[in-house]
Amino acid sequence: MSVPYLLNSAAGHIPASEKIPVIARPFVSDRAKKTLDLVEKFVEEECIPADEVFRQQIGEGAVTRFDSHPQIIEDLKAKAKKLGLWNMFLPKNHFKEGAGFSNLEYGLMAEYLGKSIVASEATNCAAPDTGNMEVFAKYGTEEQKKKWLGPLLNGEIRSAFLMTEPQVASSDATNIQLDIKKDGDYYVLNGQKWWASGSGDRRCKIYIVLGKTDPTNTNVYRQQSVILVPADTPGITIKRMLSVIGFDDAPHGHGHVQFNNVRVHKSNLVLGEGRGFEVVQGRLGPGRIHHAMRSVGAAEKALELFLARINDPAKKPFGKQLYEHGIMLERVAKSRIEIDSSRLAVLNAAIKIDQSNAKDALKEIAEVKIQVPNMLLDVLDRAIQAYGAAGVSQDTPLANMWASGRTMRIVDGPDEVHMLQLGRNENKRGAALLKRIQAQKEKTKELLRQYGLEETDPLQLNRVSGGKSKL
Amino acid sequence: MSVPYLLNSAAGHIPASEKIPVIARPFVSDRAKKTLDLVEKFVEEECIPADEVFRQQIGEGAVTRFDSHPQIIEDLKAKAKKLGLWNMFLPKNHFKEGAGFSNLEYGLMAEYLGKSIVASEATNCAAPDTGNMEVFAKYGTEEQKKKWLGPLLNGEIRSAFLMTEPQVASSDATNIQLDIKKDGDYYVLNGQKWWASGSGDRRCKIYIVLGKTDPTNTNVYRQQSVILVPADTPGITIKRMLSVIGFDDAPHGHGHVQFNNVRVHKSNLVLGEGRGFEVVQGRLGPGRIHHAMRSVGAAEKALELFLARINDPAKKPFGKQLYEHGIMLERVAKSRIEIDSSRLAVLNAAIKIDQSNAKDALKEIAEVKIQVPNMLLDVLDRAIQAYGAAGVSQDTPLANMWASGRTMRIVDGPDEVHMLQLGRNENKRGAALLKRIQAQKEKTKELLRQYGLEETDPLQLNRVSGGKSKL
Amino acid sequence: MSVPYLLNSAAGHIPASEKIPVIARPFVSDRAKKTLDLVEKFVEEECIPADEVFRQQIGEGAVTRFDSHPQIIEDLKAKAKKLGLWNMFLPKNHFKEGAGFSNLEYGLMAEYLGKSIVASEATNCAAPDTGNMEVFAKYGTEEQKKKWLGPLLNGEIRSAFLMTEPQVASSDATNIQLDIKKDGDYYVLNGQKWWASGSGDRRCKIYIVLGKTDPTNTNVYRQQSVILVPADTPGITIKRMLSVIGFDDAPHGHGHVQFNNVRVHKSNLVLGEGRGFEVVQGRLGPGRIHHAMRSVGAAEKALELFLARINDPAKKPFGKQLYEHGIMLERVAKSRIEIDSSRLAVLNAAIKIDQSNAKDALKEIAEVKIQVPNMLLDVLDRAIQAYGAAGVSQDTPLANMWASGRTMRIVDGPDEVHMLQLGRNENKRGAALLKRIQAQKEKTKELLRQYGLEETDPLQLNRVSGGKSKL
Amino acid sequence: MSVPYLLNSAAGHIPASEKIPVIARPFVSDRAKKTLDLVEKFVEEECIPADEVFRQQIGEGAVTRFDSHPQIIEDLKAKAKKLGLWNMFLPKNHFKEGAGFSNLEYGLMAEYLGKSIVASEATNCAAPDTGNMEVFAKYGTEEQKKKWLGPLLNGEIRSAFLMTEPQVASSDATNIQLDIKKDGDYYVLNGQKWWASGSGDRRCKIYIVLGKTDPTNTNVYRQQSVILVPADTPGITIKRMLSVIGFDDAPHGHGHVQFNNVRVHKSNLVLGEGRGFEVVQGRLGPGRIHHAMRSVGAAEKALELFLARINDPAKKPFGKQLYEHGIMLERVAKSRIEIDSSRLAVLNAAIKIDQSNAKDALKEIAEVKIQVPNMLLDVLDRAIQAYGAAGVSQDTPLANMWASGRTMRIVDGPDEVHMLQLGRNENKRGAALLKRIQAQKEKTKELLRQYGLEETDPLQLNRVSGGKSKL
Repeated sequence: MSVPYLLNSAAGHIPASEKIPVIARPFVSDRAKKTLDLVEKFVEEECIPADEVFRQQIGEGAVTRFDSHPQIIEDLKAKAKKLGLWNMFLPKNHFKEGAGFSNLEYGLMAEYLGKSIVASEATNCAAPDTGNMEVFAKYGTEEQKKKWLGPLLNGEIRSAFLMTEPQVASSDATNIQLDIKKDGDYYVLNGQKWWASGSGDRRCKIYIVLGKTDPTNTNVYRQQSVILVPADTPGITIKRMLSVIGFDDAPHGHGHVQFNNVRVHKSNLVLGEGRGFEVVQGRLGPGRIHHAMRSVGAAEKALELFLARINDPAKKPFGKQLYEHGIMLERVAKSRIEIDSSRLAVLNAAIKIDQSNAKDALKEIAEVKIQVPNMLLDVLDRAIQAYGAAGVSQDTPLANMWASGRTMRIVDGPDEVHMLQLGRNENKRGAALLKRIQAQKEKTKELLRQYGLEETDPLQLNRVSGGKSKL
Repeated sequence: MSVPYLLNSAAGHIPASEKIPVIARPFVSDRAKKTLDLVEKFVEEECIPADEVFRQQIGEGAVTRFDSHPQIIEDLKAKAKKLGLWNMFLPKNHFKEGAGFSNLEYGLMAEYLGKSIVASEATNCAAPDTGNMEVFAKYGTEEQKKKWLGPLLNGEIRSAFLMTEPQVASSDATNIQLDIKKDGDYYVLNGQKWWASGSGDRRCKIYIVLGKTDPTNTNVYRQQSVILVPADTPGITIKRMLSVIGFDDAPHGHGHVQFNNVRVHKSNLVLGEGRGFEVVQGRLGPGRIHHAMRSVGAAEKALELFLARINDPAKKPFGKQLYEHGIMLERVAKSRIEIDSSRLAVLNAAIKIDQSNAKDALKEIAEVKIQVPNMLLDVLDRAIQAYGAAGVSQDTPLANMWASGRTMRIVDGPDEVHMLQLGRNENKRGAALLKRIQAQKEKTKELLRQYGLEETDPLQLNRVSGGKSKL
Repeated sequence: MSVPYLLNSAAGHIPASEKIPVIARPFVSDRAKKTLDLVEKFVEEECIPADEVFRQQIGEGAVTRFDSHPQIIEDLKAKAKKLGLWNMFLPKNHFKEGAGFSNLEYGLMAEYLGKSIVASEATNCAAPDTGNMEVFAKYGTEEQKKKWLGPLLNGEIRSAFLMTEPQVASSDATNIQLDIKKDGDYYVLNGQKWWASGSGDRRCKIYIVLGKTDPTNTNVYRQQSVILVPADTPGITIKRMLSVIGFDDAPHGHGHVQFNNVRVHKSNLVLGEGRGFEVVQGRLGPGRIHHAMRSVGAAEKALELFLARINDPAKKPFGKQLYEHGIMLERVAKSRIEIDSSRLAVLNAAIKIDQSNAKDALKEIAEVKIQVPNMLLDVLDRAIQAYGAAGVSQDTPLANMWASGRTMRIVDGPDEVHMLQLGRNENKRGAALLKRIQAQKEKTKELLRQYGLEETDPLQLNRVSGGKSKL
Repeated sequence: MSVPYLLNSAAGHIPASEKIPVIARPFVSDRAKKTLDLVEKFVEEECIPADEVFRQQIGEGAVTRFDSHPQIIEDLKAKAKKLGLWNMFLPKNHFKEGAGFSNLEYGLMAEYLGKSIVASEATNCAAPDTGNMEVFAKYGTEEQKKKWLGPLLNGEIRSAFLMTEPQVASSDATNIQLDIKKDGDYYVLNGQKWWASGSGDRRCKIYIVLGKTDPTNTNVYRQQSVILVPADTPGITIKRMLSVIGFDDAPHGHGHVQFNNVRVHKSNLVLGEGRGFEVVQGRLGPGRIHHAMRSVGAAEKALELFLARINDPAKKPFGKQLYEHGIMLERVAKSRIEIDSSRLAVLNAAIKIDQSNAKDALKEIAEVKIQVPNMLLDVLDRAIQAYGAAGVSQDTPLANMWASGRTMRIVDGPDEVHMLQLGRNENKRGAALLKRIQAQKEKTKELLRQYGLEETDPLQLNRVSGGKSKL
């Protein structure tokens, strides 16, 4: 690596592997620690400096931006591959195709990837490809794997996952309407999808699409199927690219896609008719952990930018540097606390997935799905405020990070949906708890009698008598 | 144990040992797991039902309450000893006198102790005795240990730690003023202390007192000494008992104590003159973890009460049970998230202490010192609101828990002090980060040149020229 | 007045009448301004110094406290009467019995009353008597007025309003169950009430009771009646006094009252059978404004105490006075902002009541019912934190104020109920807004055609075509 | 007006003039009420439908967007002029040039202008022109007025105010560095400015520039001067346009402007050398009220969109419309409360300016400067969340509104600066309050003696004596 001074220049720089929270250390192999330090070095020394290059290589102008393919990405991919930083996301105990790390170990790495715009793609660990590769590896036929998983694992093509629709409340996936009709050996698709993330990239070659093959099935979770649709299939139109809080996220982007009589061969079906929900659910767990850990890394990055700003000798409002204004240090402290406990929550969820699977870790995953983006937004808000007008402009990555972070509160289900499910699940304990508390009260009565005291039930007390004297 | 139905009645009750977060499990011995389950059983079946008995045995009337000694406490202590639930707090790697658990293991138990008013004292794990016993065990002479540590470990006497003073900003301990003057073989104490927690109890026999032996020492951290003062030494007056948000915490209480020419022999000095700060600092770390984990337990208890309430069929405002009002489930979910990530933060801090010591875990301890009480108050607030007027009354433990929780934001230093120290500590990275970010920007310039792009520094851009045409 | 230096000592003291927000001034008569200044003087110079005297005259010991009648109250009442500060609460345009002020004008005075524990009772403006007097004046027969309103207006007796019940979700008043059965010329009451505020005072002579005379009426709002029950009627038992967050609010207090075959003559009925809801609703509006404005005053008092603390030269943590720690000034500023805008909301609601009636001001009243106590608690929390341990103790009024403030979020309906009603009411606009927004979109389409642009409906856009080239 | 159905379609639409808070009504003339209703009609029926047209006429592509001049704006301006909706912002008691309304009256109108992107410019009430016109009207020479104020009042040209600089902490205006050197009859400007809002528009013809003419003056508030610089003066370069959270705000925009030896005649000086601060301060007050009221309008708009969404029958997650999920109505209620009390705060500030001037209303202006944007962001966040992914996209105005709202927390000084000043100002009362509280305590002692009670000072209490029996 050519510019070693970037990390060393920070006197007393502590390598990533030594900053792993003590509670997580038993779960991290020495090999993962070494890779983690390499990831940190690659991100800090290669990727972060490349972010602005990437931004400039995309250029300006709506059409141009989506047609661009920044060379820096390919150069970084080559470097990453050489360093062995490739496909770290595929968990070792479920897939043989990956780099052989656990979700926990990759989670630690994802934190560092989250500090740069280009790092995830540079190491072939970028969403939605990661989740899509898991789908292929887990549910794909050999033919499907050969055709799509291979190139994806090599970083030769990209992919999109098409689930959300504009005309219904897609936070409840039973509402989706894209029609998949059987027609001989083919399926014909009609309908619309949006938030097809990644579909803007001209290298995006394959869509994994959720639709309804059996819309009248009484079991609303059996109406859906997942099917593979090559991006160049006739009948597909990308109507427009959606922006998130003003950012178009080009060249990746988020497409609004129209399907008009799109025909694909039946061999493109994944897992079988009516099994769409199964595929979708199997796909989501680890991805949320990746997102969450990248968000933790983004928060660390925001805090670093915050700290750099309040120590910038050029910024002295009212005769004092910003860190000398007490309020800034309190915000630093709050950010530190929130980041650290969020990280532990994500790592614990990752371990739970590692030790069984995403289904058993539903609660833990939902918790971090809600907690982490909100934490990130709070930390970002403080950093933006410290930068003043520069904080909302293109001069720092903060505004873009904020837009992405805000979106994370909605993507894969808004906070409210996860909150409701988490609340409902927790509420199942209610009846048993009521019973236990009542039993404890019974025991209290017993004890009171035993100790010669009156019964405690407040409604049986009688120490004051009206009518005559009071109290 | 006589009433096994209390826990079993909750269909599908999961024992405490199985609810340990996966990330913490490698740190918990089988013996600790067994003890943990026993603690849970003891707390749920013996202590919680006893809380109201304790309350009634204290009675009413200011003087009476502090002279009371509820028999139930002694009975529970006998039971606890028999079960081996005694002195679990003394960490095995620092003290031979305890039950042989790590801070992490005891932390897990302290969570359950925190669900009952009487449980900590019943197992001889109550503050401030725990911290005081640590002081004796760590810094006491053999004579001091024999005289005070023995009876304390046996639960025969209680103790108080006198540090805070009413007339100064004690959050900064260099401000304390109690005068300790040498007079031959004796020291003479003059001054005031308040928030002497535990001093209300007639079984409180020994005060550990921080004062100044060398007030003019130029090193402000060497002016203080710690000295042992038997509670019945002439010249001591408890002026009054302080209340916390309306609660007197009798018989334990918080005393405001006057020292008028109080003489104690020089053998009562702890560690030596000028080493007061050392003793104080050595005492505080693990105690904060205990407090924090009890607070996590209190929050779990509040959530249980919350869940019981919203499932109470008698409470149906506007035709629906409370859990059917969406807002309640969202609050349950938020509470679940906040409790779970706070717990992880405390456990991680405990492990850090276990693996080195409290000094190395300063950051982690400060984080939970701030985070946990605030979390507890949020959870309590939601539970209180679900109970309506019953929630602020004596009919649930919530109001009392709130008062204690609120106080925890101040005890052992207010949030602001810890926030400032945490912020300052984090801010030390500022200069290095500024340097690293600047180096990354330099690298970006290099890359831009390499790729044939203009320099990115926004202040050097020149793509628009005024005077003639714009843009 | 004997001690004029109390206000004058504050150099540059601005009298209350000059601090009325400019926007409210057109609504305040010169007479009200003069009275307002007198109220301020009376509160600051007579009442606040008397608060601690009151506290000590109540004494200690549960029974004693409720049997006490502090002499200082009677002395202050005599002074207040002499100054003409008496019954200011009865709005001039609805009642001839009062001091002739509008709700707005009294609201301004109530702010100052809210700064002292004794001031409201000293001026005969204390709840629940105020609301009860309104009930008598508005709905009472001449006989009822003579017997109860006269003595109440003279401050000779006190009263209680019994509505809430322990066994149901009383936040929904249709749930109440106290049985009122007709028996010849009498009504017989059976059931329980709690949170009978004021019932602890031995001078409390009359209960206004809500119960059900017609529990099977299909109109759930016609089942209830209000009836007058003298406190010494046989069959009434005060089972116990309830505490609020540790405070008993003696001698006033909050009683849990049992009715066993309590007989009262039918002439005690208010307004007629089945009109209980009408009475209850007619009673609540202005009282909420009084509470709200007293809470604004309490918040101002908390801010004053806060400011005094951070300017106390004796409190210098870490070498700086508290106000020099930046964070304190930010909290002062936040408090200032929140108090000021809350006050405007209350004054606006008061004017709305003045200009029509409480029913028309439902929205405005609900808004301040929710907003003000929450604001008060935030301001108090900051002040408590600045005082450290003193802030939670009996040494400042903050803890007691906090307990009362917390209770205000529940009394007269918890936040959630008001929030739901406010939300529902606002939501009635939903359909019309949807229609309007759709009409605006139609117009947009028209304009786009007119300007030669494509239709804007995003779902009709077609600028990108898949299958061949992208974008 | 051609499409009257837009408002009428909302059954029971209440005109703006009837929704003025009762407390503000005495300050609004009948003429203003009529104009207000006309503004509402113009905004709802003409401007809001035009917003999307404006957006499309700007087009895409960085350069193009800033060179565009949407025809719809000119057409709306013509309509507005015809309706008499022109220059309503210039307060009648300070300027003869305007439409003759008070700040309060215009504030009410500005609320409606804030609901549309184009409305402010369409009525010639857009920042920064409004503040700039005030500068000309207040401080300009007759020549300056003729040359610039006339065309501005006619909406023929636009203008920019150049104050903030990229290289210093401009939140403290004494830090600015742009050099203005005298050279015979000319001044020569060198330096940089950024956030020159409006400078992107090709119709922007005049810059009002703050710089230093006397950088060594010992009075740091006399070093600055304000000078007029025509936008086409040689030596001016717009280096780039800044974005706010991803939006470029074209064609208006925010320029980063370089001055290289820019020469202007001395007659371009405003008010005189060293009076720059005076000009800046005289300019800021009313503008903040305009911003604040537009933000109140934006919040109302967000709430309308929120309500429309939760009543959209097409959006039924989990079988219920969104408004049926309890949490949505609570958020509606919170938004209602926060908007309403913020509006009152702004109106009160406007009246204070009307009755004296902006300097006397410093506190009130600072309060709304801080409060309103934060309120707006909270309301927007809830609305965005209800829209899910559509909420962050270009399909609703919410994302753009959020970006602008976020920026308002920084523009004209970040929250922190205003908070600090507000806090400092409030803190001036501290010493007097401490004195008053001490005097009240003295009086308490007097009273206690008078009533035969012990002194209350807690530190003098002595009811418990140690050494023998306790308590």
